Amino acid sequence: MQSIMPNQQIINKVIAQLRFGDNGLLPAIAQDASSRDVLMLAWMNEQAVRLTLETGRGTYWSRSRGSIWVKGESSGHTQHVREFYYDCDGDTILLIVDQHGAACHTNRPTCFFYKVDDSGVHITQEPIAP
Amino acid sequence: MQSIMPNQQIINKVIAQLRFGDNGLLPAIAQDASSRDVLMLAWMNEQAVRLTLETGRGTYWSRSRGSIWVKGESSGHTQHVREFYYDCDGDTILLIVDQHGAACHTNRPTCFFYKVDDSGVHITQEPIAP
Repeated sequence: MQSIMPNQQIINKVIAQLRFGDNGLLPAIAQDASSRDVLMLAWMNEQAVRLTLETGRGTYWSRSRGSIWVKGESSGHTQHVREFYYDCDGDTILLIVDQHGAACHTNRPTCFFYKVDDSGVHITQEPIAP
Repeated sequence: MQSIMPNQQIINKVIAQLRFGDNGLLPAIAQDASSRDVLMLAWMNEQAVRLTLETGRGTYWSRSRGSIWVKGESSGHTQHVREFYYDCDGDTILLIVDQHGAACHTNRPTCFFYKVDDSGVHITQEPIAP
């Protein structure tokens, strides 16, 4: 399985080029490598970026819990990181991942299940079996 | 061409369900409807959400300029919004768009052109002809 494991020199270079916000965080988007669906957006601090690159597992900063959050550590719905991108301004990360199980805490495949159209707001995904 | 033009009642319902941050903003991801590439992440305040839904054009809040920013108004690289989603927590928006020209201000197709792998940081896209 394709993976990324850059060394510390590369990781330090990435950290130096990223621009974390005033709260020390930047947004990270996870996109499914096979379906190409946008799965979720979460937040990373420097430690979360380092852990993601060192371990190849999607790792974020939980704003609600105020702690590092290894995606799937309690649910089992892990994210194996195949590709790691950052953007022109260095203030957003894009992970291309293999998502095991639901990406959303509601047990839906992705977090983006509220769709707005001319007739209203619709729920477009159902929870999947755990 | 598929488009969205919800009425004011629907737009007000969406606004009521969104959770803007302390700075009055939330992140919005734009994904290309045909390539399925994640194009960019920008920020929306309430007015930007309303304008995006009312006009069907990707409209953001420029943090650097401190003003509303209709994507492509100066570059011509407009975003026609085909689908509008928000996430489980109501704090992130996902637009599925037809992107005309480059999505990135560097004139690259997307903003996510810095790729990190075992051998370093690589630029994976070249600027396209204007």
